[in-house]
Amino acid sequence: MEWISRKNILIVGLGLMGGSYARGLKRLGFHVSAIDRDPEAIRWALEHDVIDRGYDHVDETTVRDADAAIFALYPGVFLEWVRDWQHLFKPGLMMTDVTGVKSCVVYDIQAELRDDVEFIAAHPMAGREVYGVQNSDERIFRDANYIVVPTEKNTPEAIEWCRSLGRILGFRHIAELTPEQHDEMIGFVSQLTHVIAVSLMTCSDNTHLVDYTGDSFRDLTRIARINDAMWSELFLMNREPLLRQMDVFLAELGRFRDMLAAGDREGMREKMRLSTQRRALFDKK
Amino acid sequence: MEWISRKNILIVGLGLMGGSYARGLKRLGFHVSAIDRDPEAIRWALEHDVIDRGYDHVDETTVRDADAAIFALYPGVFLEWVRDWQHLFKPGLMMTDVTGVKSCVVYDIQAELRDDVEFIAAHPMAGREVYGVQNSDERIFRDANYIVVPTEKNTPEAIEWCRSLGRILGFRHIAELTPEQHDEMIGFVSQLTHVIAVSLMTCSDNTHLVDYTGDSFRDLTRIARINDAMWSELFLMNREPLLRQMDVFLAELGRFRDMLAAGDREGMREKMRLSTQRRALFDKK
Repeated sequence: MEWISRKNILIVGLGLMGGSYARGLKRLGFHVSAIDRDPEAIRWALEHDVIDRGYDHVDETTVRDADAAIFALYPGVFLEWVRDWQHLFKPGLMMTDVTGVKSCVVYDIQAELRDDVEFIAAHPMAGREVYGVQNSDERIFRDANYIVVPTEKNTPEAIEWCRSLGRILGFRHIAELTPEQHDEMIGFVSQLTHVIAVSLMTCSDNTHLVDYTGDSFRDLTRIARINDAMWSELFLMNREPLLRQMDVFLAELGRFRDMLAAGDREGMREKMRLSTQRRALFDKK
Repeated sequence: MEWISRKNILIVGLGLMGGSYARGLKRLGFHVSAIDRDPEAIRWALEHDVIDRGYDHVDETTVRDADAAIFALYPGVFLEWVRDWQHLFKPGLMMTDVTGVKSCVVYDIQAELRDDVEFIAAHPMAGREVYGVQNSDERIFRDANYIVVPTEKNTPEAIEWCRSLGRILGFRHIAELTPEQHDEMIGFVSQLTHVIAVSLMTCSDNTHLVDYTGDSFRDLTRIARINDAMWSELFLMNREPLLRQMDVFLAELGRFRDMLAAGDREGMREKMRLSTQRRALFDKK
C-alpha cells in the first residue's frame, strides 16, 4: 500500500483547512509536521496535539524528510513557496493542495516543478465561517465533497494517492474534474452565490429591516460574512468563469424583471415550476 | 377584556395559515368555525379537531354568529368574498387577514366595507415549504414576526385587538408598519430573495452539479421550491415595490461585476467588508 511508505506528512499553511487535515491524518497514525509563518498558530497546534512538529519558518530537515506535502496556502503565495523551496523536496515526493481555484494554479505549479516530484491538485469543498487552526476540525469533511483535479501531466498513481487521501479523511463524495470544469462549477455553486449574498447586503442600507427578516433572508445572506482578502483573491484568480456565470445570472434575473414589469404571470409561473422541479433533485441528496 | 367578548372566531380559507390560526385559537379556548371551498380540507380539520365547525360553502348562520373573522385567502379572492357576503356580518365584527402584500388589498377592502365593522390588516411572517391544513401547526409562529398594518381608517381598539391576537398566538416579535412600508420591506426581504433563488435554478441547466453543491448553494436555493400560483399573484400585487428592489439589486450586482472585470480588488474588498459588518447585525437576533 502506497500510503504506508508515505508516513511523514508536511502541511504548509496551518489555518482552518491545514489544521483539519493535520488532525485527521494524525489520528490515522501519520507523523504530521507543519510550517506556518504565524508562531502563535504553531504554538497552539503543538500544545493541542494537532501536529507532531511545527515551525514558524522553513525548517530544511522537515521539508527534506517529507514523503507527502499538503499545501493549504493562499493561492498567490503557493507558487512562490514552491519556487523557493522545491530544491529541498525528497525525490518521489507527492504534493497536493486545497486551493479553491484550479486553472490558474495547477498548470503554473506543474510547469515549475522538478521532474522527480508530482503535484496532484485537489479541492476539499469543506469549510466553516470561522478561521484559523484554533477552529480546525476534521469532522467538517464528513458531509463534504472532495474533488481531485488531474491534468495530463499526472500519473494514475498520483490520482489514486489523492483519491485515497480523500477517502481516509472521510469525505462523503469523491469526484474528478478537469481544472476548467472545476473552475466553471465553483464559479457557479460557490463564487456566484457569495457575490449574490454580498450584493444583497450592500445594495441598500437594510439594517433597519433586521426585525423583519425571516428564514429566507437569513439563509440567503449567511455567507455574506466573508473573508475579504481570501475571497477577492479567489474571484480574481477565477475571473473569466465567474464573469460568465454572473452574466448568465444577470441576464436571467433581468428576464424575470421584464416579465414582472409586463405582467406576464404565465411566464413567471413557468420559471417557478422549472425552479421547483430542479431544486427537488438537490433535496434528495 | 376585549377578547372575552369575541369568542366566536370565523376562519375563511383553511390552508396552512388558516389551519395554524385555528389550532392556536382553539387551544386557547375560542370557538373556531371555518369555511373553505375544499370539502376534504374541512373534513380533515373536523376529524383532527383543528376546528369546531366547518363548511365547504358559506353557511350564513356561521358568518352571522362570528365576533371576529380571519381571512386566509389568496389576495385575489379576498375582496370578492367580502363584497359578496359582508351583508351577513354582525355589527362590530373585527376582521383581519394574513395576506403577504398590503397596499393593493387593504385600501380596497376598507373602502368597500360597511361602516359598522372594521378590517385591520396583519401579516404573520411565518410559513412552511408545504401547504394545506394537513400541514398546519401553530408552532410556526413561535420564532416569527407578526406585523400589524393599520391605515388612518383604523381605530386604536382594532389595532390593539390585532396586536393582542399576535401576542396570544405566540409570535416572537410584533411590529407596526404602514402598508407602503410593509410592501417595500417584503419586496426586499422576501420577494426579491425568492426571485433570486428561482433565477439561480433557472439561469442554466445546473442539474449535473448536484454532486458538487455545498451548503451555500443549498441555502440560497432552498426557497426555490415555490408555489407558483400564490407567488406569481403576490409578485404582481406588489409589482412596483418589487421592481424597485430588483432594480437596486441588479444595479449593485452589475457594479460588482464591473469591479471584477476591471480587477478592482480593493473595491470588491470594501463591498465584502460592508457586507460582513451589516450581516453581523442579523446574527445577533
